[in-house]
Order: sequence, then C-alpha cells, then structure tokens
Amino acid sequence: MDALHEQGLRIRDAARVVAQASDETRRAVLVDVAERLRNNTDQILAANALDLAAYTDVGAGRDRLALNEARIAGMADALDQLAQMPDPLYEVVHDDVRPNGLGVQKIRVPLGVIGVVYENRPNVTSDVAGLCVRSGNAAFLRGSSAATHSNTAIVALWHEALAVHGLPIDTVSLVADTSHEAVVRFMQLTDVLDCLIPRGGPNLIRAMREHARVPYVLDGDGNCHVFVDESCDMDMAIRIVRNGKTSRPGVCNATETVLVHRAIADAFLSQLDAALSEVEIRGDAITQSLVSRAVLATEEDYASEYLDLILAVKVVSSIDEAMDHVARFGTGHSEAIVTSDPAHADRWVRTVDAAAVLVNASTRFIDGGELGLGGEVGISTQKLHARGPMGLAELTCLKWVVRGNGQIR
Amino acid sequence: MDALHEQGLRIRDAARVVAQASDETRRAVLVDVAERLRNNTDQILAANALDLAAYTDVGAGRDRLALNEARIAGMADALDQLAQMPDPLYEVVHDDVRPNGLGVQKIRVPLGVIGVVYENRPNVTSDVAGLCVRSGNAAFLRGSSAATHSNTAIVALWHEALAVHGLPIDTVSLVADTSHEAVVRFMQLTDVLDCLIPRGGPNLIRAMREHARVPYVLDGDGNCHVFVDESCDMDMAIRIVRNGKTSRPGVCNATETVLVHRAIADAFLSQLDAALSEVEIRGDAITQSLVSRAVLATEEDYASEYLDLILAVKVVSSIDEAMDHVARFGTGHSEAIVTSDPAHADRWVRTVDAAAVLVNASTRFIDGGELGLGGEVGISTQKLHARGPMGLAELTCLKWVVRGNGQIR
Repeated sequence: MDALHEQGLRIRDAARVVAQASDETRRAVLVDVAERLRNNTDQILAANALDLAAYTDVGAGRDRLALNEARIAGMADALDQLAQMPDPLYEVVHDDVRPNGLGVQKIRVPLGVIGVVYENRPNVTSDVAGLCVRSGNAAFLRGSSAATHSNTAIVALWHEALAVHGLPIDTVSLVADTSHEAVVRFMQLTDVLDCLIPRGGPNLIRAMREHARVPYVLDGDGNCHVFVDESCDMDMAIRIVRNGKTSRPGVCNATETVLVHRAIADAFLSQLDAALSEVEIRGDAITQSLVSRAVLATEEDYASEYLDLILAVKVVSSIDEAMDHVARFGTGHSEAIVTSDPAHADRWVRTVDAAAVLVNASTRFIDGGELGLGGEVGISTQKLHARGPMGLAELTCLKWVVRGNGQIR
Repeated sequence: MDALHEQGLRIRDAARVVAQASDETRRAVLVDVAERLRNNTDQILAANALDLAAYTDVGAGRDRLALNEARIAGMADALDQLAQMPDPLYEVVHDDVRPNGLGVQKIRVPLGVIGVVYENRPNVTSDVAGLCVRSGNAAFLRGSSAATHSNTAIVALWHEALAVHGLPIDTVSLVADTSHEAVVRFMQLTDVLDCLIPRGGPNLIRAMREHARVPYVLDGDGNCHVFVDESCDMDMAIRIVRNGKTSRPGVCNATETVLVHRAIADAFLSQLDAALSEVEIRGDAITQSLVSRAVLATEEDYASEYLDLILAVKVVSSIDEAMDHVARFGTGHSEAIVTSDPAHADRWVRTVDAAAVLVNASTRFIDGGELGLGGEVGISTQKLHARGPMGLAELTCLKWVVRGNGQIR
C-alpha cells in the first residue's frame, strides 16, 4: 500500500466521524475557517506569492492562481453563506408503510469521501472543503501543483478549525503528490472515494474516462445555445445574447451559438451586429448575407465551446430545426429559448435534453449561487446522480430505512 | 462506425421519441406486451427449448435459463403491474422563485438510453424493457448468448407492441453480437448509453471497472449482516435469521453473517443451532464453544457472500463492535439489527453505511417489489445516483427549468 492509499484510508475513517457530526458542529467549523481566513490573510498571500514567483506561464492560469485580499474575503464570505444554508442531511424524502406493516423510508445521508481534481484556483480548495464538510463529507483534494503553497496554507486553517471542534483533521486533505502518475492512482482508489469530481478541461475528462475506476460525475463542456424564436421581444433577445456571450466569456455557462428564426433573422441580426460589435460572428450563408462582417461557420464552429468573444450563428426555419441542432451539437449544459409563444416555451422545456433549459433568461444563470444552492462543486453535464450545478444536496445520497416488528418473507 | 455503434445511434433516436410519449401510450405498450406474452407462450417456450437444447452446463445456470408457463405468466403480470404504477415522469421536485423573479424548478425526466448487461434469465429481458419504457427510456439489452433464441422471441413481441402504439421498435433492442469483445465495445458507447447497469458476478463488475467509459451503476455483492442485540425478542431474531439465510440463499439480499451480542450468545446460539440445522455454521472461538458443529471462521469467511446454506457467526461485545465489523466487511447492501432498544435501533440506522438498514425485519425485504417500486433493474451497492433497488424513479434524472422575463446577470 502506498502513501496515497494510506492517506485515503485515514480520510475514509474521518468521513465516518464527520458524517455523525451535528448540524451545529458542521456550521461552526465553516464559520471558524471563515474567521481564520480573515485573520490570516497576510499569511495566505505570502504562500500565494511563493506560488506566483515559481509560476512561469503568462496566460489566464496566472490570474486564476493569484489571490488578493478581496478574493480571500470572498472565500470567507462563501463559507459564512454555506454555514447559513439549511442542513442537507437526514431529510426524509420517501415515507411509506407497506401492506405487511413495514415502515419504509428514504433519508438523505452524506456520500462519504468526495475526491475533487481541479486546476490553479486556490479558492476552490476552501469552497469545496466548505461544501463537503457542510454536507457531512470528507474532502480529498487534488489541486494543481502550481498552487501547492496556497492550498497548503488554506488547508492548515481548516485543520485548526476541525481540531477545535473535535473533528479529525483528515476530513479535509490535500493529495501531497501532484504528479500525473499520482492523479491516475487517485482516480483508482476504489475503497476510498465514493465520488470523484473532475473540474478541468477536455484532457482531464479524457483521463477520467480512461483511468477512473471510482464513480465520478463529469463537469463537462458547455456549448450553450440561445434560440431566438419568430415571436419574441427582440430587445430582450439581444440583451440575453449579449449577456450570455460577453458578461464572462470564459465560463461554461456562456452562450456559444445563437439560433435565429428565419422570419425575424433580418431585423434581429442587424441589431445583433450593432449590439455585439466587439464579438466576432461566425454564421451560415444567410447570416453572412445579413451581417457583412460575419465569417462562414464550419461544422467545427457549431461544435465549439469558444470561451471567447466569438459567437456562432445559424438561421433556422422552425423550433424543430433549432431543437435538432441543439440535440446534435449541444453538450447537455444549458439551452435557452427567447419566445413570446407559451406553447413553444413548453415544447422547448419538455423536449430539449440538457441539465438546464431556460425561457427568456440568460444562460449565465446556470450556476449554483444563482439557483440558490449556496455554491457548487462543479456543473454536471452527465445525467447520473446530479445534473447541472452540484450543491449540498448533490453531495448526499439516499439510504433506505426499513423498520419492522419481526417481518419475514 | 461498426454495426453495434450504428444500432446504438438508432436507439438514441428512439429514446428521444419515447421520452415524449404520453403516460397513456407508455402504459398501453406494457399492457399490450403482457397480452402478447400470454397469447404467444408456446412460441416463447419453443424458442427457449432451442436455447436449452444447446445448453451443456448442468448447474444453476440451466434453471435460470429455463422458462415455463408460470414464468411467462409472471413476466406478463409484472408488466401489468408496472403499467399500473404512477407515471414517474414530469414530477416537480423543486420549485422556487429567486429574488430576481426567475422561476426555478427541477423536473423528473427520462435518462435516455439504458444499457443492461445480464446473464441467462430471459425474464430479465421483458422486466427491464418494461421498467425502461414505463419511465420513458429506451432499453439496449445485452443478454447472455445462451438465451439468444428466448430473448429474440420476447423482444419480437415488444417490437410488435411498440409499432402498434406508434413508437420506434428500436426503443427495445438486443445487442446482436454476444461475444466478449462486443461487450467491451458496448461499455464504451459514450455517445449512446446514458446509464449502464451490469447485473452479474464479480467478473462482470471487474470488467466494468476496467473497460466501461460510460456512466454506470454497479449492482454489486450483498454480504448482508444481522446483528442480534443484547436486548431483543430472541424468537424474532431466530425467525429473521432463518428467513434471511434459508428462504432463498442464492440471492444478494440473503443474510450471510450473524453478529450476536455476548450477553445473549449462549441462549441465542443454542436456539440457532437447532433452528438452522440444515445450515453450516462457521464461527469464531466463542461460537465454536457454544455450537459444537461450528467450524472456525476465517477472515475470508466474514468477507464472503456465500449464496449458499452457510452462515458466518461472530460474537461481539457491543453494538459498536458490530458496526465496526459491518464497516469492515459489509458491501453496502443491506444490514439489519434485531433489538428492543430504540436508542440502539436509531444508532444503527444513522451510523451504518449501506444502501439499506433494517430494524427487526429480514434482509430479504430489500427488493424493488417488496419496497413498493413495482420492480427493479438491479440493486445498486454504490452511492451515486441510486442506492439499493433501482425502480422507475431511479431510471430518471432531474432537469433544471428556469423561466424568466428577460433576466440577465
């Protein structure tokens, strides 16, 4: 047995303890860590400075790695907010008495040990630990090697708070070995991890599919569409597309493709041209005939999650053509319709197969905070267990409880 | 693209259609197949006779492969019963209005394409198809090669009924190539299968962990325990252990180990000795001193799912020791306590980590039919998505529905 596996077994033991901790204790740990984050901001920034000094890339990864006072305050506030969420545990979701007198219930319990693989952002360390502990789980965290000093400093505060409240410090643990070999072994700790959540790009997803032997929930790509229907408030449609594309282009709930009904394509696309002047437009032939600056979209464009100020556009002749396009190119994340026709809204909601379907609202709302979950570990684009933002409830499972007075079959 | 993958894409298209079928249509298909099973019993028995004639094994597999009039009637009755279950689809399980006015719901929708890998029993073909279609899903079924004639005859009746009710016949499909190579490719149809459920032994589970690239729910082993507490109705305890061990030893919810409190071990084990005379007892040293015919149990015995008339026994000094034993050797299936102490019952229920915990009832009740689910595709021993018997609700997932009037972030 190697060190990683031994550490995993300690975390599994810790999970059995934290699962039995009271609501009050679990809340108190989060509030305590929030306080320690505020009181030890300088110490965390010093650790982060070591990471930044060793970091040679100049791209967006550097910004994601960097902490500052506001970001640390944000981490603390997120924990305070989670502490105030209602206890996700021990809810009775099914309650029945069978004809033979057996009482049958399903109750909500923690999953156990949650593994998370993520990239540079050190705030994820604290956010995920908060979601796990609030829901009675242990967190086994495999962060980026670039963030090791920052993550270690943050986890040290968690250990102090856990110890103060009588919980095992192993409840929140970092994978010490951040090599690629170790991440593969991490994905195969079948007697440790009850659920593994990868937060990362296509390479991580591919590695998960290839190597993972534990149950996992994929946080996949978001190729999100907005369908602008024939009958709609066109100013609203422009607002929703502009917000979906430009408010934060690099996130998975950003809008990537607009499908527009042929009947209003002329008016809508000329408004879009003006309203999204900073955005590159890639469209089909009709789009090109209406928006002179548009370049011709390929199949690959429609399949792309740009995560950039680029928008694919396609003119369609009906809601059915729009839904077929989404069925073909969508990644099961978030799909919106802008329409004034209630029957079309209902068809969209019922037919489109995605984690989230929206009517007359920006795709950017598909986020744990915006939906009222108090945070999220990731956004699931698969269908098993959790779909869409994974908050506290998604870190639990259900247990059957059967009470009898001697029944046999 | 090979034939299996092409077939899969047709099934995926069928799944989009059946997902939109009305409750009435989905019920009607099941009732229709039930009728056809009753009217074509001879034809199915003739197909089954071909399978049996080619089958050379003499073990339990032959019995599992064999159909008769009663078994076919049972398949038909199961479908009629499923048809009468309430519609599992479109239930609103979460309903909220956010401060910005967005209406936020979670609704229950079909998973899509359910893959099932199973062994000889031809009745599974009809049972699983019934659960899938009732819940708006398509079923892609990989049965045993030994049952090919039987399965093909049963699926032919499904195709007739689906066509009569205007649904694509691909909604219920068999994997034609039942080779081992094809089953590995089946487990990797990532753009086809939304959920794969293996029903089989340790070899299949190992193959799944190794080769599956699609989301799956494991139907694993059941090493089920009964803890006989210090304070209990001893006659009830004997009844529950006897029922758990002997009523059907070969199934996963059979009792495999009895843990008995030291304070009552003497009286209880002498009653057990007499009441389970046909059962081999393997126990620890104390058990051996009380039951002269008991052989010494090894660690391996405590880890075994015997599926036979063999019972492991261990004397423990407390409920804590019992729970530690279950935590170490249990497989997360079904764990029972027999006790008259409500505080011990509550601790057991809250602390023991398994799909099902029982108080004063036989482990044999952990079954979809007994729990009121109307049937089951399998019994999940993992925690993600479904835990315990997988009925209609476990073949669905939740979709977020967000309705606004132009909200942006």
